[in-house]
Amino acid sequence: MKKLNFASDYTEGAHPKIIEALVSTNLYKTSGYGTDEFSEEAREKIRLACECSDAEIHFLSGGTQTNMTVIDALLRSYEGVIAAETGHISTHEAGAIEFCGHKVLTIPHTLGKINAEQIEKFMQSFLADGNREHTVFPGAVYISQPTEYGTLYSLSELQKLSEACKKYGLRLYCDGARLAYALGSKENDVTLPDLARLCDVFYIGGTKCGTLFGEAVVITEKGLIPHFFTTVKQHGALLAKGRIAGLQFNMLFTDNLYEKIGSPAVEAADRIKEALVKKGYTLFFDAPTNQIFILLDDKKYESLSEKIIMSFWEKPDESHTAVRIATSWAITEQDIKDIIDVF
Amino acid sequence: MKKLNFASDYTEGAHPKIIEALVSTNLYKTSGYGTDEFSEEAREKIRLACECSDAEIHFLSGGTQTNMTVIDALLRSYEGVIAAETGHISTHEAGAIEFCGHKVLTIPHTLGKINAEQIEKFMQSFLADGNREHTVFPGAVYISQPTEYGTLYSLSELQKLSEACKKYGLRLYCDGARLAYALGSKENDVTLPDLARLCDVFYIGGTKCGTLFGEAVVITEKGLIPHFFTTVKQHGALLAKGRIAGLQFNMLFTDNLYEKIGSPAVEAADRIKEALVKKGYTLFFDAPTNQIFILLDDKKYESLSEKIIMSFWEKPDESHTAVRIATSWAITEQDIKDIIDVF
Amino acid sequence: MKKLNFASDYTEGAHPKIIEALVSTNLYKTSGYGTDEFSEEAREKIRLACECSDAEIHFLSGGTQTNMTVIDALLRSYEGVIAAETGHISTHEAGAIEFCGHKVLTIPHTLGKINAEQIEKFMQSFLADGNREHTVFPGAVYISQPTEYGTLYSLSELQKLSEACKKYGLRLYCDGARLAYALGSKENDVTLPDLARLCDVFYIGGTKCGTLFGEAVVITEKGLIPHFFTTVKQHGALLAKGRIAGLQFNMLFTDNLYEKIGSPAVEAADRIKEALVKKGYTLFFDAPTNQIFILLDDKKYESLSEKIIMSFWEKPDESHTAVRIATSWAITEQDIKDIIDVF
Amino acid sequence: MKKLNFASDYTEGAHPKIIEALVSTNLYKTSGYGTDEFSEEAREKIRLACECSDAEIHFLSGGTQTNMTVIDALLRSYEGVIAAETGHISTHEAGAIEFCGHKVLTIPHTLGKINAEQIEKFMQSFLADGNREHTVFPGAVYISQPTEYGTLYSLSELQKLSEACKKYGLRLYCDGARLAYALGSKENDVTLPDLARLCDVFYIGGTKCGTLFGEAVVITEKGLIPHFFTTVKQHGALLAKGRIAGLQFNMLFTDNLYEKIGSPAVEAADRIKEALVKKGYTLFFDAPTNQIFILLDDKKYESLSEKIIMSFWEKPDESHTAVRIATSWAITEQDIKDIIDVF
Repeated sequence: MKKLNFASDYTEGAHPKIIEALVSTNLYKTSGYGTDEFSEEAREKIRLACECSDAEIHFLSGGTQTNMTVIDALLRSYEGVIAAETGHISTHEAGAIEFCGHKVLTIPHTLGKINAEQIEKFMQSFLADGNREHTVFPGAVYISQPTEYGTLYSLSELQKLSEACKKYGLRLYCDGARLAYALGSKENDVTLPDLARLCDVFYIGGTKCGTLFGEAVVITEKGLIPHFFTTVKQHGALLAKGRIAGLQFNMLFTDNLYEKIGSPAVEAADRIKEALVKKGYTLFFDAPTNQIFILLDDKKYESLSEKIIMSFWEKPDESHTAVRIATSWAITEQDIKDIIDVF
Repeated sequence: MKKLNFASDYTEGAHPKIIEALVSTNLYKTSGYGTDEFSEEAREKIRLACECSDAEIHFLSGGTQTNMTVIDALLRSYEGVIAAETGHISTHEAGAIEFCGHKVLTIPHTLGKINAEQIEKFMQSFLADGNREHTVFPGAVYISQPTEYGTLYSLSELQKLSEACKKYGLRLYCDGARLAYALGSKENDVTLPDLARLCDVFYIGGTKCGTLFGEAVVITEKGLIPHFFTTVKQHGALLAKGRIAGLQFNMLFTDNLYEKIGSPAVEAADRIKEALVKKGYTLFFDAPTNQIFILLDDKKYESLSEKIIMSFWEKPDESHTAVRIATSWAITEQDIKDIIDVF
Repeated sequence: MKKLNFASDYTEGAHPKIIEALVSTNLYKTSGYGTDEFSEEAREKIRLACECSDAEIHFLSGGTQTNMTVIDALLRSYEGVIAAETGHISTHEAGAIEFCGHKVLTIPHTLGKINAEQIEKFMQSFLADGNREHTVFPGAVYISQPTEYGTLYSLSELQKLSEACKKYGLRLYCDGARLAYALGSKENDVTLPDLARLCDVFYIGGTKCGTLFGEAVVITEKGLIPHFFTTVKQHGALLAKGRIAGLQFNMLFTDNLYEKIGSPAVEAADRIKEALVKKGYTLFFDAPTNQIFILLDDKKYESLSEKIIMSFWEKPDESHTAVRIATSWAITEQDIKDIIDVF
Repeated sequence: MKKLNFASDYTEGAHPKIIEALVSTNLYKTSGYGTDEFSEEAREKIRLACECSDAEIHFLSGGTQTNMTVIDALLRSYEGVIAAETGHISTHEAGAIEFCGHKVLTIPHTLGKINAEQIEKFMQSFLADGNREHTVFPGAVYISQPTEYGTLYSLSELQKLSEACKKYGLRLYCDGARLAYALGSKENDVTLPDLARLCDVFYIGGTKCGTLFGEAVVITEKGLIPHFFTTVKQHGALLAKGRIAGLQFNMLFTDNLYEKIGSPAVEAADRIKEALVKKGYTLFFDAPTNQIFILLDDKKYESLSEKIIMSFWEKPDESHTAVRIATSWAITEQDIKDIIDVF
């Protein structure tokens, strides 16, 4: 029997609507570098969905690329970016931020989240430091929604973070690699217009949320980043056939698809969690989106690993292993049944 | 009437075989980052086509990204890369090489090409310079096949370049953004195995040669670049759904598609050139691949610009303009008829 | 009354022998960039003192410059450097390592020190990480002797660190900004030949140890860093009148001056500590070199601040402040008397 | 007989006044990093000499370091710097500008100089380029006074350059490594106040003009470069004992020493040139400062090389060599007599 694959939310291709659009427009001739009509239309749809008519929107290929390009563009050369020690840029991007010359200034996390008080404290301490001119200047704050732990910032938390950033002249940047799974969660109260209003820049994740690839960067204020197009090119992030990314987001923002595409995955995750807990499993911690974190004793871990592809999360003690399984927008009833049965 | 679009060779989507494969495999679940079976199979097919069983192969998104990532990986931090002053890395990549910390050491070109004598002369001059320890060390040579001028290196020229590089410890890197159009030219005598034998690294262009996006980097010697995967990640160039790139190259290397896909474009270019010359037009220079360079008086340029999207090339004098039109793998009989009629 | 200045060990100019030598050789004509006879002689004396006849030696201006240039030269572009979270490169170098593209991989400290077990644990964890190719590769270990806390690595500790580094292919680099104060401490059992044998690269501090400026980088193995001269130039660290740095080290390594120059400062620190403790003061922690860390209640801190220039160290609780005072090679009996009297 | 050394203008130590000041202040205790009274006083004297009361002034160690730090601070990350192809940053700084991520955009020179028309033409061409967003943006212009060819910009030329820069939003930066030899030339009509008025930033060279080391960066407008101190630290260019640099400039700007120190060297150069021409030698080209360029047939070059240390300049044809000899502020009557006799 083939192993079940719950390793991540980027195991499948693209949403059928996207595939259809790629097929039907395949031989159209368009101009390059995102100047085509599909991309323009996608931008307009995103502006509407974000209620941000001034937003400047760019389509890049992937998450690390987007993070490094935006953060480098947001920072002056002597500045660094504040992030949770568990932030993707802190841990799993091979030093891409440092490659651009900037330090990641890490602070402790609570299930992947940071808060306004921490920013306040960090900045107070920085400003009180008589030697601060010998240190990296904090220039921006990086958060992710949902976080790497599948947790969510509430609207109130995000507002406070945004205020703290404004107070200290820090730009707020939100990594939305899995944003559709936030929007698809019943616990979520942060909308796209909220993100556009409270962040300086954020990106709407495509790769993990229904596209073949692609992330939509939303610069919420015109002129905030001069010549971002050139910076994108300089970072090797400009797509010649930009329309392929644009078209995919065009589909995701037709008939509110993006706001709906994550729900099945989150609902599936909820059902799987419920079933596992009923079977006696222990959640390592609970997260309201599409990632499930389970504590297994090592024997169980070993036997399950023969039947399911999961992600190792951490080893909390000598005899247990925490694992992560992720559901995706493409999950089927059969998948849900299979995973519950196998556990 | 809609304008004819001959601006570039990346105006359409992907070859129908690629679209078919994307459709038929869309909901397969695979592992990420290019570790999937489609990519593995593509690598093996490319190794066979290149007669290079040891080659390490990576799939990246676009040309500038590939150039910057490979060149940065090939160079020590105090080294620069020698290139024609017309090389893509010298002119149209927004300083991506310098962004990685390396100087592009430019030398004069002949219709986009450089030669072994120039390398010899450059290195002799460098080695004779008593102050060379105060200058950038040449570490690699960048060429493109076809060049930005649509011209081709002959096998003999490439062999000599390769020997000159070996003599001086320079790594030879070939940008194959339009490689299919070289392979599809009757004048070409450089095969994929030749490139694999004579270059340290080259890339097989996808974006301009039939894919939605994607370039296949061929590192011809195992271990030449340690941990290139991590360098790719660090440069923001690692695709989460690596399989989408892998699958496209898998198709391009099934039934020798890549070696055939460029021919119609080159044949079309030949027919268009012949017709234009017959009509009394002057070629700015002749190139044996899919790019056509035409000298127009400015009035003609103006009137044609209303009917065809072309690329401005240069302004050789006060009253003339040189333009480029490019044919692509997707060109049709109707396209050929239309462009000839309009001129 | 003028305030006493115990802020640091770089408050004075240079050792009289150095001043004499600068005066007497001032109008000699020499070649530039450290190729002069004074520098050559200094290198030979340092090789002798380090019992390392193969060492390659370069003279740079200051500590941050030396750290960034050496570490950048030691690392491949995808590698980072392991350091104590209190390491100078982690905290007070304005992100100079990140500016060069490398991440500082911080680990906890014990009074400024790290140990072989931590390296072992870090590397085991790195090697066990299935996603390690997505993370920064550890390439080197940074330590300082004495540390930023004035503490010392014992020979045994250094040997174990060196072994751990060798085991995992990490290069060991030691920042010797205050090395003379280690050599001048009665507790020290690590000699220059020990450092040369156990480290890949270290530097012998001049700026804080008796020169006007300058640090001597000792690359303990020939060929370890190719073309370091050019890397020095590229980092803006090459002195045109290299002889001025060379001459100063020439003096420091004449008649074992360097091994003696720190003792008076350490002895003074010992006497001051003894006197302060006798007076009822509490050391924040004890360090065997030229830095004294004192815990003061805030009122005392305020009143003393009017009479002595000290360095703020940290605020351990609401009503206390820890301060640092530093003695230098130039300390006099009067200075010692003054500081004790004022406390 | 010892060879005469005319290789450069940094063969000796420092001006006697500087040495005296270093001796007399050696054991003073001061604060670090250029916050001391000697440096403050030097800054005030420089502001007065430049008639620029708002200028922000920093003391760095050497020319390459100064160029890379200032240019990196002046440019946005997607910008490059325009320079003569013969500019020091283009040729002999080991790629330090590229190390900071910026391209040097070279343009042709006339004996080391560029002019306003070239800037005009470059910018017109850049702005007319439909693909300019794919290229490096010009952000600043680099010139040197005197140039690497010993030539001088006239006030009128500098004014035009400055206007052209302003017109296109380019910052103008002048490398004054040998500035004292411009000020000491009878042909010069550009004063320090002119430089301060017409450049955004320039530096007053110390290393080649009478100090042991050190360059004084003059930022002519407050706030032009935010947190330059931190950028200096980040580039490894901050001196702990900043006072040593400050004190030297303090002396150079006491009693107008800086404006007088270059004259003897320029006068000596004039006398030497006259004598050599009288002896039948041919100048390779004439320059009005302290560098002399002589065309020698190769036999003569060989025989002279045994008696004088000169700098190879270039090889204009098969049987001739052009050499450079440089006089310095420290030149003596005996030196002049010796060099004339030997030729």
